[in-house]
Amino acid sequence: MEARTEDDRVVVGGDARQRFYDARGYGYPLEGNEIALAWVEAAHLLLRGDIDAVDGRDFEAFLRDGAGDVEGGDRAALTFLVYLDLRERGFYLSPAREGWVSDPDPTVDFVVYPRGKGPEDEAVAYEVRVVGERESIAASALGECTLAIVDEESEVTYFRTDRPEWDGATTFTPEEPVDATLLADRALCWTPPAPLHASAFYGQPLGKREEGVDVLQLSLVETAQLVAAGALSVDGGYDAVVQRGRAVEGERFDRRLQVYAALRERGVVPKTGFKFGADFRTYADVESVDDLGHSERLVRVVPRAFAFDPRDLALDVRLAHGVRKQLIVAWPEDGDVAWASIERLTP
Amino acid sequence: MEARTEDDRVVVGGDARQRFYDARGYGYPLEGNEIALAWVEAAHLLLRGDIDAVDGRDFEAFLRDGAGDVEGGDRAALTFLVYLDLRERGFYLSPAREGWVSDPDPTVDFVVYPRGKGPEDEAVAYEVRVVGERESIAASALGECTLAIVDEESEVTYFRTDRPEWDGATTFTPEEPVDATLLADRALCWTPPAPLHASAFYGQPLGKREEGVDVLQLSLVETAQLVAAGALSVDGGYDAVVQRGRAVEGERFDRRLQVYAALRERGVVPKTGFKFGADFRTYADVESVDDLGHSERLVRVVPRAFAFDPRDLALDVRLAHGVRKQLIVAWPEDGDVAWASIERLTP
Repeated sequence: MEARTEDDRVVVGGDARQRFYDARGYGYPLEGNEIALAWVEAAHLLLRGDIDAVDGRDFEAFLRDGAGDVEGGDRAALTFLVYLDLRERGFYLSPAREGWVSDPDPTVDFVVYPRGKGPEDEAVAYEVRVVGERESIAASALGECTLAIVDEESEVTYFRTDRPEWDGATTFTPEEPVDATLLADRALCWTPPAPLHASAFYGQPLGKREEGVDVLQLSLVETAQLVAAGALSVDGGYDAVVQRGRAVEGERFDRRLQVYAALRERGVVPKTGFKFGADFRTYADVESVDDLGHSERLVRVVPRAFAFDPRDLALDVRLAHGVRKQLIVAWPEDGDVAWASIERLTP
Repeated sequence: MEARTEDDRVVVGGDARQRFYDARGYGYPLEGNEIALAWVEAAHLLLRGDIDAVDGRDFEAFLRDGAGDVEGGDRAALTFLVYLDLRERGFYLSPAREGWVSDPDPTVDFVVYPRGKGPEDEAVAYEVRVVGERESIAASALGECTLAIVDEESEVTYFRTDRPEWDGATTFTPEEPVDATLLADRALCWTPPAPLHASAFYGQPLGKREEGVDVLQLSLVETAQLVAAGALSVDGGYDAVVQRGRAVEGERFDRRLQVYAALRERGVVPKTGFKFGADFRTYADVESVDDLGHSERLVRVVPRAFAFDPRDLALDVRLAHGVRKQLIVAWPEDGDVAWASIERLTP
């Protein structure tokens, strides 16, 4: 069976409508018995031998013409690999383009139907955005789509992104401010009220295995938030802590402090995520540090206009999955904090 | 008991030699019964209440004087926290300084003795370098030391670094070069010789779940290395592949290709490490792709003068540990590749 190119579609007639559209969800119907195919759909039918040629070109020539150009940023090979992968997983899917779907989302490449469903049904399983390993992913684009990342060996990894809620129950009501000493990049509180660490899980005891020592070490973000809450007093006040924070980590300190404070406001306890390579690990509900469960989430704080290298995102997601925590990306937005969750998905 | 500062040492007399040096490995002996203490040793004895004051200062004042200055890059608080942590783990240890140890290594902060041993014995368990979470770690400094990284909440994480060997047994002997087509950022080989994928584990079949399709997808590093080895032929030859590689990932392509080729030379199979956020995962001995074991190592390729953010290193090490692989860092050095292994250590 031969097909031909018309504008940016491939058109095929004969029994194509019945064989390809009705039975297997390729393309969309035109006048008579013809159907329109997207480039990826035509490539897939060529690969399978279901059509023989497009404008006389076989699969190799068709692919070379469509997916050979790097300078023009041609994404044809990437989208084809994702299309192929989803087809092989048993899904029917359509390009998110006018004609194939109604009211297409321009940030989405494919609309994937639930298994057993096709373009004539209403249901949608995934809205998939295709990303090459060497492209970047804007943090602000996370939150409401499925990413399909194609690595250099043409394997496809899927990430589901969403907008998480926070629902914490850990509170700390300060009485009189207690004194703390600022050191180079941390602070020491000499006479901490017991609940500060024991139930609100601030800080870490100094000399934790030593008898009779009751000094609490605080990180600079903890210190700044406690000073702002009226729980702690240091020489120079809040400004001195922030100045110290900026001296040791630049404007990253302000971002992290903003996210730290936003989590505490929501009753969530953020502790350092260093061992997981994250900014914070979080506990929604600490009753006592002696009876601490596992932290539930890992939070990575990024700037407002940050774009991820897909490989770094893959690293974060894989690690979080391995330690059974949910990965959250956080960034400052409109005076508040925006959050996106990301997890691996097997379609 | 009172101590006094003399130059950059703290000196203490009375029964200090017997109580602190002989019995518990602090300091080194001076004339008579006096001993010299380093700042961290004096701070630890103050914290424990074993000495009462240094020049009249108690623990708080002593710590504030020594560890309060950020502008001067004072590392006193960091080294103290590591000293304290190792003491609490039951080790005796000495500052790597003239007087305390003979022939001290200037890149090392502490010499740690095996449990039950002290400065008078010959044995050394670890040579520890102290790193703050906000400092950076030169890749070239990895390979023969133990890193003690202090995070913002004063937890200490230890990494052992070493020089790994490679010992692979996977070979591929090309016959005639076969044709491949360069696409935007990968290549397709239309008639691959069976062993290319089946036993040498190059590439990935296109349409791997489709019947009757026998096209092999190759990454650009695989393609370049195969063209150089005389196994593959593409339009424009080796230079065209390298040019394409540089177009899609800049000079990172050259580094990755150099490491890829060095691994293949050693009989090791590198495949993409994308899912683990690494450059490559490696298999030392592939006999058949149908009977493939788990990959053993993850390789991260960095530039010659690269310096790690400790948090990124923590992320890599933690991930590798979670998937039971060894983390290797590789960088170009003197026309060859330098390798360092890094793993978490619990002293």
